[in-house]
Amino acid sequence: MTWHDGAAAVAALTFDVDAESPVLARGGHYAEHLTTMSHQSYGPDVGVPRILDLLDDLSVPATFFVPGWVAEQRPGLAASIVERGHEVAHHSYSHRPPTSLTPAEERDDFERALAVFDAQGITVSGHRAALWEASRQTPALVAEHGLLYDSSLMGDDRPYLLEAGGVVELPVHWSLDDWEQYAYLPAPEIGSVIESPRKVLELWKAELDGMRVYRCLLMLCLHPFLSGRPGRLLALRELIEYALSCGDVSFAQCRDLAVRAAADESLPVRPVSLPVVDPAVYP
Amino acid sequence: MTWHDGAAAVAALTFDVDAESPVLARGGHYAEHLTTMSHQSYGPDVGVPRILDLLDDLSVPATFFVPGWVAEQRPGLAASIVERGHEVAHHSYSHRPPTSLTPAEERDDFERALAVFDAQGITVSGHRAALWEASRQTPALVAEHGLLYDSSLMGDDRPYLLEAGGVVELPVHWSLDDWEQYAYLPAPEIGSVIESPRKVLELWKAELDGMRVYRCLLMLCLHPFLSGRPGRLLALRELIEYALSCGDVSFAQCRDLAVRAAADESLPVRPVSLPVVDPAVYP
Amino acid sequence: MTWHDGAAAVAALTFDVDAESPVLARGGHYAEHLTTMSHQSYGPDVGVPRILDLLDDLSVPATFFVPGWVAEQRPGLAASIVERGHEVAHHSYSHRPPTSLTPAEERDDFERALAVFDAQGITVSGHRAALWEASRQTPALVAEHGLLYDSSLMGDDRPYLLEAGGVVELPVHWSLDDWEQYAYLPAPEIGSVIESPRKVLELWKAELDGMRVYRCLLMLCLHPFLSGRPGRLLALRELIEYALSCGDVSFAQCRDLAVRAAADESLPVRPVSLPVVDPAVYP
Amino acid sequence: MTWHDGAAAVAALTFDVDAESPVLARGGHYAEHLTTMSHQSYGPDVGVPRILDLLDDLSVPATFFVPGWVAEQRPGLAASIVERGHEVAHHSYSHRPPTSLTPAEERDDFERALAVFDAQGITVSGHRAALWEASRQTPALVAEHGLLYDSSLMGDDRPYLLEAGGVVELPVHWSLDDWEQYAYLPAPEIGSVIESPRKVLELWKAELDGMRVYRCLLMLCLHPFLSGRPGRLLALRELIEYALSCGDVSFAQCRDLAVRAAADESLPVRPVSLPVVDPAVYP
Repeated sequence: MTWHDGAAAVAALTFDVDAESPVLARGGHYAEHLTTMSHQSYGPDVGVPRILDLLDDLSVPATFFVPGWVAEQRPGLAASIVERGHEVAHHSYSHRPPTSLTPAEERDDFERALAVFDAQGITVSGHRAALWEASRQTPALVAEHGLLYDSSLMGDDRPYLLEAGGVVELPVHWSLDDWEQYAYLPAPEIGSVIESPRKVLELWKAELDGMRVYRCLLMLCLHPFLSGRPGRLLALRELIEYALSCGDVSFAQCRDLAVRAAADESLPVRPVSLPVVDPAVYP
Repeated sequence: MTWHDGAAAVAALTFDVDAESPVLARGGHYAEHLTTMSHQSYGPDVGVPRILDLLDDLSVPATFFVPGWVAEQRPGLAASIVERGHEVAHHSYSHRPPTSLTPAEERDDFERALAVFDAQGITVSGHRAALWEASRQTPALVAEHGLLYDSSLMGDDRPYLLEAGGVVELPVHWSLDDWEQYAYLPAPEIGSVIESPRKVLELWKAELDGMRVYRCLLMLCLHPFLSGRPGRLLALRELIEYALSCGDVSFAQCRDLAVRAAADESLPVRPVSLPVVDPAVYP
Repeated sequence: MTWHDGAAAVAALTFDVDAESPVLARGGHYAEHLTTMSHQSYGPDVGVPRILDLLDDLSVPATFFVPGWVAEQRPGLAASIVERGHEVAHHSYSHRPPTSLTPAEERDDFERALAVFDAQGITVSGHRAALWEASRQTPALVAEHGLLYDSSLMGDDRPYLLEAGGVVELPVHWSLDDWEQYAYLPAPEIGSVIESPRKVLELWKAELDGMRVYRCLLMLCLHPFLSGRPGRLLALRELIEYALSCGDVSFAQCRDLAVRAAADESLPVRPVSLPVVDPAVYP
Repeated sequence: MTWHDGAAAVAALTFDVDAESPVLARGGHYAEHLTTMSHQSYGPDVGVPRILDLLDDLSVPATFFVPGWVAEQRPGLAASIVERGHEVAHHSYSHRPPTSLTPAEERDDFERALAVFDAQGITVSGHRAALWEASRQTPALVAEHGLLYDSSLMGDDRPYLLEAGGVVELPVHWSLDDWEQYAYLPAPEIGSVIESPRKVLELWKAELDGMRVYRCLLMLCLHPFLSGRPGRLLALRELIEYALSCGDVSFAQCRDLAVRAAADESLPVRPVSLPVVDPAVYP
């Protein structure tokens, strides 16, 4: 068995349903900023239903990474995604980045999210660190709690095995995220350029074409509050239709990819490598 | 009655006639910066007359959001807009964002603008918060003073009713604002990238095309000191002509839209939702 | 007589030969940054000769704004520009923005530049403020020293008369400057995006086309250390050739434009307008 | 002999194999940021092998600038590049910019890198300052240690001789670097815009076309952690194929270019020029 199952490239459509959490993680007082809160709530309220319809329409599977806090605030949300045949996965409790937390705080946040999904009867098989800011201990937490995969690192553009714990890494990258292309908010400042969906489509098609040459994983990371906008959804539809028309690209949920990857003996094993730094050189 | 009256998408052309106010709101000492002041005064002095001619030429209605301070500084400005058949609406007194004011200061600023319009014999029916930074109390202020609509939130891309007070929300979005595309000023820093009108036209046409699929409100927010420049006006003309050529897009002033929306029983009601935040999670 | 002499639009090619001055104005210690200094010296050393050849080649006139400090450091530079038939104009002594100086410091800097040009036998007829940051007194300084024009304000996109002193204003704009499109330097941070010459050409052609509709002044502001690069020079050549091919665009030095504008009785007079600000509203 | 050997333009493909060093130079604590470290290790682990294959495929030579610290951390890396027929050159030890170091620290860092290459049996002939932030003494260090060339300055876009020491300068420029186009990392903030490979290809082709007119050196500076991504590699391949198809562009390693340049008697000599600054003007 191979992770790619013969495809030239595999596309994983993932949606990080962050809602208000990344803004609140920048300061609890933003809860008083009415416009900002409405900007974020657009994601679950308007974006998610449209995205689910689009996925139905094109018959492609997807994975939704949901912070525990968001699942808690909107009790029916995670279940409504699972009911449509998609995967829900672990995306921290509060969307505070692990590198900003103590090890105990990270563990607490990690386990609190698991408890929320457990209480809602949602089985999660994988994890993505908030802001893709995994810490030294993040892979061990994923392994310890029996999850199959992590999707927060950038050490390759194909799945790889993390040395510690046998966790499958399904790597992400800034260039395959909609945040860098579309996010704009002055307070808190989360981005300052709004690109045209045409440019974004061009960027992602270029990356997909390159990945078909190098047999890679197109790990697309989208946010309903950003990509749920009408013009961006049309561009996403066009990207998916382009991928389907290639004939050599397959689509997969992260969970299925992780199962195939774990059984692929040719998969590279990469150390969870943190350089030992001499403070005289790098204070 | 429906808010869209059968159109696939409705376009609202709105112009925020901010003049010097957003710069002065960043510091009164900028009043001494002669170039910066001239950059802002270009809006009412050069941009507005050209925009009024363009609207005449294409026979499309528009809404002009004017800060009270600006109307006061240029006594004939608001009336000259109304005389051309367009709507003038409330855009705060000083263009200081409500989230930076105490509730009493926000109320004072809000009412001072109403007094200015009242003294000038201008009837305003709606409100847009400065910098789109509505506070918890903003919708209640709008309702209390008998205005029909607010246009500062982003919880949807179709009109919706605000739970508190029955105010119609005509939502805005960063991607339909010219500020993010064109604003450049180093001191105060209000933007740092100057896009080509071609890119902006592409962006807005993409959004309009998406909105025609999802039956949305294209709430275009333009600033005369930005979009009044010659090349940008040609692009705006091209956008309007494109919308007109679609055959399924209608244009409306915000006031008329609000009246239709208030009578549309299918309109979603959205809570003025501010999450209750645990300071242990989000300090 | 009219300022435009019948042309649909007039193009003024202006080159700000800043060399090291804008970087040193951010801190004298940058004089020790060898790469940064070489980045700036490229302007007069490599850019200016190429630009002079290009202007010869296309037979178009230009105006070079030179800081006094730069003329002093490179004694033959200003004369070499005049010898090729172009205009040299006043661009401050040190390139420190007037808004950062006391009135006495601004006067001192202004007069020191005049003394440098005087000593070099260069007659200057106009002035451009460093960083386009004119102060309240800048137009009066220009008038007092007998210069015909200023080119630092943005109150229109056609020449206008400044109420105080009868100085002709030849207005500039961020969108017609190469700095916003091409400047990149991390320390001091002077810009962070490097656009393609194709995009810049598209932007400026769009503005020129708009200006041909509204009969405006295309006041192009270029920096030899930026636009002197090979690919950018080809784009500039293409822009000039496009303007020439339009048949209704003329080219003029600022001095000649100012003479024509001063004799044009239809020219609008704009006040040197600084709003009086209530510190209770704008602290 | 001429540096260009008759070509209209010469292209030097250079790869800065920085790995984790530029991030650690911003703070040793980033060694704990697992995602960030994986983002950087992608360069040597995934990018370099692909780049070597691409160079083989197109039969073009290249130069790899490697920090001593990186060569030390990955003992086989530099040798694996030399074995494929490419040049390895000096890129500091720690990637801390010389302008941030005392003269003694810069010398120490410079010599430590030489010792690493010496111990690995790698002969280096040239140097590039970290972050292109050469100090006043950098060229003298290069000369003192018998290196033929430096590649850190921007005083021209053709090779030139540095007055002090007879070192050949092979100049770089921000516009021919992939960092400004592709780098994105929020912590440390190393860039904030991700351009499409189409735009980058357009930018570099425009510069190459200009350079073919002015007989220049296309000193392309690429980073394996950035340009090693699939879509970007396809664009690089297209750029090289375009250059090859021109018929008047040659490719050269920096070492060979430096040898030719040193023997070219028409080469301009440029002073290592640092202006003497009056602290009363530039504090």
